[in-house]
Amino acid sequence: MIMRLFNKVAIIGVGLIGGSIGLALRRKRLAKKVIGVCRHKDSLRKAQQIGAIDRGTLEYKAAVEDADLVILAAPVEQIIKIGKKIIPYLKPGCVVTDAGSTKEEIVREIEKALPAGICFVGAHPLAGSEKKGVQFARADLFKGARCILTKTKRTKAKALKEVSCFWEVLGCRIAILTPQRHDKIVALISHLPHLAAGQLIRVAKDSLGFAAGGFWDTTRVASSDAEIWSDICSSNKKFIIQATDAYIRRLQFIRKLISKNDKERLSLEFKTAKSLRDERQK
Amino acid sequence: MIMRLFNKVAIIGVGLIGGSIGLALRRKRLAKKVIGVCRHKDSLRKAQQIGAIDRGTLEYKAAVEDADLVILAAPVEQIIKIGKKIIPYLKPGCVVTDAGSTKEEIVREIEKALPAGICFVGAHPLAGSEKKGVQFARADLFKGARCILTKTKRTKAKALKEVSCFWEVLGCRIAILTPQRHDKIVALISHLPHLAAGQLIRVAKDSLGFAAGGFWDTTRVASSDAEIWSDICSSNKKFIIQATDAYIRRLQFIRKLISKNDKERLSLEFKTAKSLRDERQK
Repeated sequence: MIMRLFNKVAIIGVGLIGGSIGLALRRKRLAKKVIGVCRHKDSLRKAQQIGAIDRGTLEYKAAVEDADLVILAAPVEQIIKIGKKIIPYLKPGCVVTDAGSTKEEIVREIEKALPAGICFVGAHPLAGSEKKGVQFARADLFKGARCILTKTKRTKAKALKEVSCFWEVLGCRIAILTPQRHDKIVALISHLPHLAAGQLIRVAKDSLGFAAGGFWDTTRVASSDAEIWSDICSSNKKFIIQATDAYIRRLQFIRKLISKNDKERLSLEFKTAKSLRDERQK
Repeated sequence: MIMRLFNKVAIIGVGLIGGSIGLALRRKRLAKKVIGVCRHKDSLRKAQQIGAIDRGTLEYKAAVEDADLVILAAPVEQIIKIGKKIIPYLKPGCVVTDAGSTKEEIVREIEKALPAGICFVGAHPLAGSEKKGVQFARADLFKGARCILTKTKRTKAKALKEVSCFWEVLGCRIAILTPQRHDKIVALISHLPHLAAGQLIRVAKDSLGFAAGGFWDTTRVASSDAEIWSDICSSNKKFIIQATDAYIRRLQFIRKLISKNDKERLSLEFKTAKSLRDERQK
């Protein structure tokens, strides 16, 4: 894998994801200069302390001007807002990517705003943790993780290749999908499980004192940063509703089998779920 | 905690749970003799090899006659069947307990069949693993785990105390509940999460190649032994249906908030779930 050396990379948002990107970038010596930008001085200081960035700034302009690569590592709505705001400061040939949890809205809004000569390739590394903040950043956070890149009619082959190499060097396994296909998939494997886990906690709230390891594993994802989730729901509304409806239908079907005491089909259900899980897990 | 020394303890079912009970019993030197009984010679041989039992037999009579304590460590339906079958062989003063996942049906059926002079105290140690079989048994499986004991009108104080001491010595934290209350609680913290996890897998089955750590954690419990679950659903039908209905209602409510794009209330939902989980986890 050959990767060009970037003169200047700007990471917008230095939390768990942005910080981990910075650590990996600097450890692999992929950039001469890694600039972090963020609303909180404190995060910038921490990011610099742990070696995730060379320098931090609160100013978008200072961060992105002359950058070869800009990575938007913020919550979904912020990515769209900031992505539009920085456009006037980007140099021709600059490539922009992101790490947002949804893709259709982000890609549509940013592509609409971008002038010719600047490319955006949406990305979603399927890595993370229920932990929040740059203090949990790790250079190997992306090692072995899937990273979905988006391809649209406007995606330039060169930019796609460059962004693909970038995430690969960070350790990701790349998949290239349309933004819609991405959003449909993550509704099923990430957004619905998050809703499902949260509601298991709500329903069991008076019995949590009896919960054991299995329950806490099942609901771990509900412990992740609450603030990003209403944005995700809004940004991926259509597919999350589709997934939730399919899930409710499945639960109603299972409820019917239980109510009819149909042990044979129930047993088949449990076996199918078990074998799907056992087969497909990495 | 003072615990009498048992002359003879019989463990019926030497899988993960029965095997772990045996290992702990023998390590703590609580019994002069630990006899395992099981339908499979192979499991008995393995149990003896790892030191979970002193001797194994395929015959219930040989296992339980003269036993001071009998532990039924089998799936729910088997507990009821075997519990009734062994009654004629039990000596007066014998105490019987179990490790079944539901309690109302087990306690009712066994209490109904027991003669005076033999006590049954239902137990459910909330420990385990998605692994199955005596080869995964561990002496410390119960360390720190909750164990719910059941108390009914027929429960003798002395037997309750003895069974309570027994599970405590194995490392459990005891709670005493009615069988009904137990079943309602485990429907919420164990049975519903299991159904929920299985159906998440079913709904996402074509996208599992993209699933990451969060998804596999959320669905881990669905990987546990499929065979026991249709029995559990049948045995705890009423409370599982109640829990499932409450869960479906919550999901429908969340779906409505997403559909209305009510970010404020959605955000509150995610925060409430997160704080309930973060506060209550051990």
